[in-house]
Amino acid sequence: MHVAVVGAGIIGLTAAVRLRAAGHAVTLIAPELDTAGRPHAVAGATHAAAGMLAPLAETQFSQDDLAPLLQAGWEAYPGLVDLLAAFTEVETGFLPQGAWIVAADPSDARAWDHVLEHASILGRRVEPVSVRALRRAEPALTPGLAAGFDAPDDHQVDPRRLAAACVAALRAETGPDGGPLPAGAGPAARFVAGRVTAADPEGEGVRLTLADGGVLTADGAVLAAGLGHRGIGGTATAVEVPLRPVHGDVLRLRVRPEQLLPGESHLITRTVRGLVHGRQVYLVPRADGTLVVGASAREDGLAGTCAGAVLDLLADAAAILPAVRECELVEITTAARPGTPDDAPRVLTVPEAPGAVVATGFHRHGILLAPWAAGRILELLRARLKEIA
Amino acid sequence: MHVAVVGAGIIGLTAAVRLRAAGHAVTLIAPELDTAGRPHAVAGATHAAAGMLAPLAETQFSQDDLAPLLQAGWEAYPGLVDLLAAFTEVETGFLPQGAWIVAADPSDARAWDHVLEHASILGRRVEPVSVRALRRAEPALTPGLAAGFDAPDDHQVDPRRLAAACVAALRAETGPDGGPLPAGAGPAARFVAGRVTAADPEGEGVRLTLADGGVLTADGAVLAAGLGHRGIGGTATAVEVPLRPVHGDVLRLRVRPEQLLPGESHLITRTVRGLVHGRQVYLVPRADGTLVVGASAREDGLAGTCAGAVLDLLADAAAILPAVRECELVEITTAARPGTPDDAPRVLTVPEAPGAVVATGFHRHGILLAPWAAGRILELLRARLKEIA
Repeated sequence: MHVAVVGAGIIGLTAAVRLRAAGHAVTLIAPELDTAGRPHAVAGATHAAAGMLAPLAETQFSQDDLAPLLQAGWEAYPGLVDLLAAFTEVETGFLPQGAWIVAADPSDARAWDHVLEHASILGRRVEPVSVRALRRAEPALTPGLAAGFDAPDDHQVDPRRLAAACVAALRAETGPDGGPLPAGAGPAARFVAGRVTAADPEGEGVRLTLADGGVLTADGAVLAAGLGHRGIGGTATAVEVPLRPVHGDVLRLRVRPEQLLPGESHLITRTVRGLVHGRQVYLVPRADGTLVVGASAREDGLAGTCAGAVLDLLADAAAILPAVRECELVEITTAARPGTPDDAPRVLTVPEAPGAVVATGFHRHGILLAPWAAGRILELLRARLKEIA
Repeated sequence: MHVAVVGAGIIGLTAAVRLRAAGHAVTLIAPELDTAGRPHAVAGATHAAAGMLAPLAETQFSQDDLAPLLQAGWEAYPGLVDLLAAFTEVETGFLPQGAWIVAADPSDARAWDHVLEHASILGRRVEPVSVRALRRAEPALTPGLAAGFDAPDDHQVDPRRLAAACVAALRAETGPDGGPLPAGAGPAARFVAGRVTAADPEGEGVRLTLADGGVLTADGAVLAAGLGHRGIGGTATAVEVPLRPVHGDVLRLRVRPEQLLPGESHLITRTVRGLVHGRQVYLVPRADGTLVVGASAREDGLAGTCAGAVLDLLADAAAILPAVRECELVEITTAARPGTPDDAPRVLTVPEAPGAVVATGFHRHGILLAPWAAGRILELLRARLKEIA
């Protein structure tokens, strides 16, 4: 079966990898692909995302339907990492090492208590730790914290490396070390640079119309264009998917060698998620010595970087980890997440075009949900195949 | 007379313009010039500078020797602007419109009182204004200010436009509107891309050696390479000029249309200089709707952007002008100023190579001092000419 995947964000890429691994021929179509067919930039929200794999952090009390999906994404991560490793040596930066949760003031500590209650309902491990013990593990944290917790199941992945690993897996002609590809894998993916403007059924399959007038037909299609979904017409999108941009600013800092004590390789050894006077902030240490600080969630219509968001992120990060002030600010990324009214994604088929799967609306959860979404997309396309057979 | 000017920062550029206007043939040499001889970027500190022309703001109590130079630079500005206007239509963004001085808290207000005392000694106009009157003039300022002053003589210029106007004046073959160039002007300048590694006397003139091995001789030379001065050897630099980098971070914000009331074109109508809990910050409104916020002065060895400096600038700016939080953060510039131990510039000749003028060490004052420096450079070269004659 030949499946066209529209969108080179993390959802499109992971779905494409799963499809290839399941034996399908994949064509990836996205505006971000260069003329030689290589993605020249990781698209939109994936490029900005910090890659925390923390199902609990990403749910709100009103989002009980979302929680099991996030849990499913979290559980599927090691499988996705293994799958990619069977195709490519490019690593994803997956680090199953846990995180610290900290509270800047007493009311932040009380707010976390509610989250912990929620955690126990969801059956997730989160244990209080004394600030003294926390600082023994992480001496660079401020001594002024009001409370700390150990969240051993909150992991991280590097979204840019994850995307690069997906692309490498899609292009691979041989497995790692020149060995064979996994049994049953489909051919190397084809990459098409372009913006899809319409998706319609054609016979048993799907016809995609591109902005340049080109047409591409396939047995099935995955429409994973994020906010770009709003620009895709045709029968295959004949279901309302209410999307709005939720902008986010993320900072990347570089730790300077003189900030480290002998033997240290970073200011912190694990992700730190903080609540600072009611605002969430997270600090994700990367192996390359950078520190990712995020993330704002704005619906103010400002597509560019928001000065106030940068101010809050820096102030809150420095309130938890004072050495942030001496770091080099190397990058500010601003991107829009595709938000739905209930913050839950839409992965569905449309009766009028059963060969196409719509997958968008992942909001802040795209990285965490990607392995779940890829599985669900495969399931929907398989059901369609059975229907045809 | 043919004069080689080394350095395309504001000192080199204004000196070159004055030299051309005085009838000399000028060759401008700098690494930042592109292969076609056009500067492809305004160099170093000039690119970052905000362009406040506020002699008082730029002096400390210990710098009584510097104050008259700053005053001389300030007085020479209209003349420089007129000179450029005789060569080119490119405007400098010179705005002789005054500034507000504000204090965030009572101790900031007391600190300004000392400055005002200093001002009266120097004979400069600075008048207290009530916060109520200040906010009537500038409704976007926070109502929580502790004190305000009117500094009608603190002006501004746009350093990037000023540099572009200098380049245009150096290249001009005709005057504005195709009219004649000023009487007695020298030929259009020649631009050479390259880094000068040595300056030595040769006969009555100067021989410059370039990093690529090239050699250029001229009747006179101006060595205005900023911190790059440390990389120039030869007899013409046989005087110790102790320079160290003083890094500065400057932010550029964009005001969004929805932040303005009907009839307003900016959040503030004049430059605002604030003291916020002991830290200086300034906000310079530009005609293009941007707001320049500066500037840190760091000697921490960090050539990249400092996260703590960005945090302080944003926090202090927002403490004075809360709407800063809603602005778009469009640019962060970090550059090094060439600092001397007493913060005063070095504009001098060396007995061993009397055809060369050294001009560096302008620290935070390069933009303000440029017209004074250009005049002083011309004076030193004229004295040399008389000596030869």
